[in-house]
Amino acid sequence: MNDNYQPQPSDRFSFGLWTVGNPGRDPFGDAVRPKLDPISLVKLLAEVGAWGVCLHDNDLVPIDAPARDRDRIVKDFRQACRDLGLVVPMATTNLFTDPIFKDGAFTSNDGRVRAYALQKTMRAIDIGAELGAKIYVFWGGREGTEVDASKDPRTAIERFRECIDYLCSYCIDQGYSLKFALEAKPNEPRGDIFLPTTGHCLAFISTLQHHEMVGVNPEVAHEHMAGLNMHHTVAQAIAMGKLFHVDLNDQIPGRYDQDFRFGSANPKTAFYLVRLLEESGYEGPRHFDSHAYRTEDMDGVRDFARGSMRTYLILKEKARQMREDSEIQDLLSRINKHGGDNAPLMKRYSKDSARKIGELQIDRAGLGAAGLEYERLDQCVNELLFGVRDRERGASAKPPARSRNGRK
Amino acid sequence: MNDNYQPQPSDRFSFGLWTVGNPGRDPFGDAVRPKLDPISLVKLLAEVGAWGVCLHDNDLVPIDAPARDRDRIVKDFRQACRDLGLVVPMATTNLFTDPIFKDGAFTSNDGRVRAYALQKTMRAIDIGAELGAKIYVFWGGREGTEVDASKDPRTAIERFRECIDYLCSYCIDQGYSLKFALEAKPNEPRGDIFLPTTGHCLAFISTLQHHEMVGVNPEVAHEHMAGLNMHHTVAQAIAMGKLFHVDLNDQIPGRYDQDFRFGSANPKTAFYLVRLLEESGYEGPRHFDSHAYRTEDMDGVRDFARGSMRTYLILKEKARQMREDSEIQDLLSRINKHGGDNAPLMKRYSKDSARKIGELQIDRAGLGAAGLEYERLDQCVNELLFGVRDRERGASAKPPARSRNGRK
Amino acid sequence: MNDNYQPQPSDRFSFGLWTVGNPGRDPFGDAVRPKLDPISLVKLLAEVGAWGVCLHDNDLVPIDAPARDRDRIVKDFRQACRDLGLVVPMATTNLFTDPIFKDGAFTSNDGRVRAYALQKTMRAIDIGAELGAKIYVFWGGREGTEVDASKDPRTAIERFRECIDYLCSYCIDQGYSLKFALEAKPNEPRGDIFLPTTGHCLAFISTLQHHEMVGVNPEVAHEHMAGLNMHHTVAQAIAMGKLFHVDLNDQIPGRYDQDFRFGSANPKTAFYLVRLLEESGYEGPRHFDSHAYRTEDMDGVRDFARGSMRTYLILKEKARQMREDSEIQDLLSRINKHGGDNAPLMKRYSKDSARKIGELQIDRAGLGAAGLEYERLDQCVNELLFGVRDRERGASAKPPARSRNGRK
Amino acid sequence: MNDNYQPQPSDRFSFGLWTVGNPGRDPFGDAVRPKLDPISLVKLLAEVGAWGVCLHDNDLVPIDAPARDRDRIVKDFRQACRDLGLVVPMATTNLFTDPIFKDGAFTSNDGRVRAYALQKTMRAIDIGAELGAKIYVFWGGREGTEVDASKDPRTAIERFRECIDYLCSYCIDQGYSLKFALEAKPNEPRGDIFLPTTGHCLAFISTLQHHEMVGVNPEVAHEHMAGLNMHHTVAQAIAMGKLFHVDLNDQIPGRYDQDFRFGSANPKTAFYLVRLLEESGYEGPRHFDSHAYRTEDMDGVRDFARGSMRTYLILKEKARQMREDSEIQDLLSRINKHGGDNAPLMKRYSKDSARKIGELQIDRAGLGAAGLEYERLDQCVNELLFGVRDRERGASAKPPARSRNGRK
Repeated sequence: MNDNYQPQPSDRFSFGLWTVGNPGRDPFGDAVRPKLDPISLVKLLAEVGAWGVCLHDNDLVPIDAPARDRDRIVKDFRQACRDLGLVVPMATTNLFTDPIFKDGAFTSNDGRVRAYALQKTMRAIDIGAELGAKIYVFWGGREGTEVDASKDPRTAIERFRECIDYLCSYCIDQGYSLKFALEAKPNEPRGDIFLPTTGHCLAFISTLQHHEMVGVNPEVAHEHMAGLNMHHTVAQAIAMGKLFHVDLNDQIPGRYDQDFRFGSANPKTAFYLVRLLEESGYEGPRHFDSHAYRTEDMDGVRDFARGSMRTYLILKEKARQMREDSEIQDLLSRINKHGGDNAPLMKRYSKDSARKIGELQIDRAGLGAAGLEYERLDQCVNELLFGVRDRERGASAKPPARSRNGRK
Repeated sequence: MNDNYQPQPSDRFSFGLWTVGNPGRDPFGDAVRPKLDPISLVKLLAEVGAWGVCLHDNDLVPIDAPARDRDRIVKDFRQACRDLGLVVPMATTNLFTDPIFKDGAFTSNDGRVRAYALQKTMRAIDIGAELGAKIYVFWGGREGTEVDASKDPRTAIERFRECIDYLCSYCIDQGYSLKFALEAKPNEPRGDIFLPTTGHCLAFISTLQHHEMVGVNPEVAHEHMAGLNMHHTVAQAIAMGKLFHVDLNDQIPGRYDQDFRFGSANPKTAFYLVRLLEESGYEGPRHFDSHAYRTEDMDGVRDFARGSMRTYLILKEKARQMREDSEIQDLLSRINKHGGDNAPLMKRYSKDSARKIGELQIDRAGLGAAGLEYERLDQCVNELLFGVRDRERGASAKPPARSRNGRK
Repeated sequence: MNDNYQPQPSDRFSFGLWTVGNPGRDPFGDAVRPKLDPISLVKLLAEVGAWGVCLHDNDLVPIDAPARDRDRIVKDFRQACRDLGLVVPMATTNLFTDPIFKDGAFTSNDGRVRAYALQKTMRAIDIGAELGAKIYVFWGGREGTEVDASKDPRTAIERFRECIDYLCSYCIDQGYSLKFALEAKPNEPRGDIFLPTTGHCLAFISTLQHHEMVGVNPEVAHEHMAGLNMHHTVAQAIAMGKLFHVDLNDQIPGRYDQDFRFGSANPKTAFYLVRLLEESGYEGPRHFDSHAYRTEDMDGVRDFARGSMRTYLILKEKARQMREDSEIQDLLSRINKHGGDNAPLMKRYSKDSARKIGELQIDRAGLGAAGLEYERLDQCVNELLFGVRDRERGASAKPPARSRNGRK
Repeated sequence: MNDNYQPQPSDRFSFGLWTVGNPGRDPFGDAVRPKLDPISLVKLLAEVGAWGVCLHDNDLVPIDAPARDRDRIVKDFRQACRDLGLVVPMATTNLFTDPIFKDGAFTSNDGRVRAYALQKTMRAIDIGAELGAKIYVFWGGREGTEVDASKDPRTAIERFRECIDYLCSYCIDQGYSLKFALEAKPNEPRGDIFLPTTGHCLAFISTLQHHEMVGVNPEVAHEHMAGLNMHHTVAQAIAMGKLFHVDLNDQIPGRYDQDFRFGSANPKTAFYLVRLLEESGYEGPRHFDSHAYRTEDMDGVRDFARGSMRTYLILKEKARQMREDSEIQDLLSRINKHGGDNAPLMKRYSKDSARKIGELQIDRAGLGAAGLEYERLDQCVNELLFGVRDRERGASAKPPARSRNGRK
């Protein structure tokens, strides 16, 4: 049975260099793990069974590396990935660590900083393209404010738009087949970050010159920080054809950015996300943007990486079980029994359909009183997650004999 | 001095019937105030100096009123508004009180409920149009889930889209000049509500057939519930040309929907919002969607309404003072001194500009080390809000003599 | 297997009348279920297998019932409970529904309201005692403010203290063997509630005249509203000998009071709570203070009640499995291997022990670098919760062969 | 006028070395400011007018400094403070930066770590005593978990208790006149921290051997992180005689630990806190535990420090104005008119008073319907904060003529 939970390349599991390479520094404490070089990290990822490795430019190439060094480093890294059987599905730019970005990169009030951010990003895109990345992520972690008097947010959004338009054109001009994926976050490290949720990013994309090449990269922790339902947000992105990438990790709502192992804070919300990804036809990477607890050494980092993938695979198997669970499927059938009623009338406006809808006699009291069996449904899902369903009957327990009025 | 803070029709202050008419019922307690009839509420609003009154269909017309009663009620109300000098700038539909909507209206799993919601909304739009409303608000308060297994969020969003498309066509066909404004809320009364933030609404709008007639109605409390910065969200809506309406109230982040008097929970965040509305050219209503504390009688409701408008006018005056405050303006000039550097290069991509940006020599260390004076700026704004700035010099205090390296 | 999850009287599962009797009214919607009489609710509880039923005075006796009616109602109810085999382990006072309590009961600024609250509580205690309750809960839901100028919080806390002291003396004088349990909540229905967390209650208790008869009643949802860890809070209450009662339900942090079915929002946090209750020797009621979703009819209320108890029993079984899981137990042994080192020195201060501690040579770097295997531990617990552990070996999967330096 | 806002020694304003010395490193970015030596920081504090300077042991003495260096460093620092006219009111231990503390100090599962923490704290207390500190703060920032299986919270609390008992005895034995102040925080840098709120600390203190020498050090940001009302929490600490120290800063609820300048996130909540501190007779330090934005250079750090103190003094002046504002005072008189009704009856239980309370005829409907004028009160306070009250009449505006039934 457990073999089901061994990662395969077809699972498309990827990790950032910064995730397994995270040394465990936090605002109140120093690093607890050694800083490994990129190729050692790729080896570690190969060892645990990952398919892909992602990176910021400066995860690989130091910010001040001369061109010659840069070329050699990138070449060696590409070769190492090939040798170890890993792909580089995604790359991104570090626009947050260096003090020059302390008040933002693309939205800085200083045109010199903005130009430097553009310069740095074009060079980083070149690295990504050279490594074969298909997705280029933009996380505007410093694009924000603590002092609302300091920046007109309309100007900031306009500046961000200009930069993304510019960089889209750059990629097209260079013949890169990259797609961009915007990653939202509500706050931390800034008091408030512009484009704070995936919704704001999706809206912003609709204003772009090359909107067709820009999508989103929702992250569990970032949506949870705003107390939002990741499953719903990802569904909206899918419905708009904009789910280009996804960052899997975990987070208790309303706290600092925890970046915990996927499924570790709330296994149930993780389940719905996996189910949606698997059933929606999403074909992009399953990227784990998280890191091991600060209590761990490098063996613990391996445990963290293995656990991330195992949890995903366990939940994928649970999603399959749910599709085959007769009680749950019966419940879903009953719930959706009247789903199609009046659908043709509502599909498209016409004077005729409006008249017909206006004349419908709907049993308001009856529909208001009918039970929808969601308590039962949710309990069934919980028990499926707990692994205590009776596999053969697809039932948690013998349902007590009863008549359910209004549910026939 | 105080005359500055008397509301004028040109201020465009409006209140919902449900705000001053709120009887103070909450999840744990019964009503504390009598339920007044709509015309008495309009009188109250006229007395306190409001310009407009908004309503849900059932604030005015009972859900089961026969057509004849409906016509008489609407006619009498329209006449009362005229007599009392109030306009009806906005109307909306109650799609949440009746048990039929317990699992949503436009996103219900039951096609009969969805059709009823459409029927009810068309009738409610007719009322709004008859009363002269220019904005029609959609708050999908019940469009959500507690049990994620119960609804596919992709289907739900699609159903919501179909309904809005339908209703846009209905308005066009009827010749109504209404615009729609979508109002987001993350949760309560549902566990999670679809389109949880204004960003998600703006994104959704871009998928609509008649997207040009649909904008947003951001509400302070609803954005704060998700811990977001209302000022930033409204700025994005303005930047997209989509701020059609605004709901002013107040709320501590991360709590139940408080709907407190505007500016009462955090006067500073209220200030930035007023400043943005006033300086952006927003010409729509300033709508107070809030209600008096449950400790109040009807005199307290008047205090609440008067206080809402006074606070807005005080903050508007503070925004004016800020524009005339020489120290603050000097700070803003220094902050933005290099705002235009390299702007022409970044405006539009070309091979040539890309090459030039690539060759720029930016003083990374110098820009990283330079102080941006945001502590000083924020303190100045705070002291302006406290009313302790020296009006003549536009300064809070004699600035201590000092040399500011790198700030010359 | 499933028979393990049938509730037994020895499980001590109780429900409030207000939980299964909740008609589904919320701030934005009307009741969706009929209001059943108390005896019908006790029948429902008997049917689903509950052991106890709890109540507010006015769940049973109308607030304005004459004494004769009151006596008859209480007598009939007691008889019905006996006939149906249910006990009344806990009772409490409704000090929140009536408008008189709109600004608090024991902390009201009005001495007439405070006296009425005391009068009402003494009468309610009489009912509780008559029904055989052993625990009397105080939830000060209205004891708070929206306007901090309106009440000096020092005075409010002092008034609350006087009332609890008074009521303790009343019980002693009446010869009642009741214990009091204080229930904290941070906000809703008030802007801020005094004694907002169980910690604040435990502190307050230490100031009481009869502190020995007063403990706490922590509620999952209320601690989660403040973003706190329920498991930790309950542990502190147990450590202080003050866990007199517990309210089981569920809640996503940072939202309105959701009162969801136990274990439905986050099964993992529910697991740690059950494990602690079961392993700490807690012998009080397992009280479910929650209610069915508003989508449910009375059959759904039964589903809700059954599901609450089943989830508890499933998690209790998981706790047992954890104690027998050899890999987890090995991990816990390794984690605690040095737990006792130096313990005798630290047990009690003496000049000698202080000198010895001062002279200890601790390997700071070594201890800082050692891995603690918490990623592995957490993953094991998650897989145990998912039911995918290999029962015989107590392992999720064959551990990959590896050497773990420093973990021998 | 502005001279009112110049800090004086009698204001007892203190700053930690780590606050003005904060180099602006955060989880996503490197230091933006130079790391100044302790004596330079004291000079800076003297320059801006602070009264006191606080420190962790390692803010002054490196963790691995030999005894001889330690003695010289402490001596020089003491002399510098004297020369510059600053006192050291408070000291504390750094039990969080070094990797050895990655899983806690006093609550670590490893007895060697716990012993080291005790050793380090005794040495740090010696430094504090040598520098003349009167308060010794304990912030258990690492005392917590991410993995609830890893530590029994009952054991953890017990270990923490043993260490505090031990250290109290150490101080007594050494003849130090130090008092301890416990500082709560709900999370960050740990997933959950034990003793997460000031309430939990106050409860814990009641279990200590030398509880009389242990109080609390509430911090605005930490209480706000849990969404709590700082003003209420401080009031409870004062009511229990346990407010030994206070950490002033600011924070939006439900986010990462922001440590913003006092009064900068929400000036109104800051006002109520200052008012309470000033009116309660609190005589301890007004300690600013916060730091300048990362956008600032050292001049900006001075702005930050000056602004912190100015805001406090402005709010102190506002509190004085509130006491002299006739309209507000009239409102407060009306609000409290019936405060003493029945107070003698409720003061102390007796059979006689219980009978009398039982016989009271309270006008439930009348009291439920009466308006409490809190909207008006809150608006008056807001306008006082905005500085727009008419000083002579103590009124914001001519109150409209009206009859207030039931408010005579």
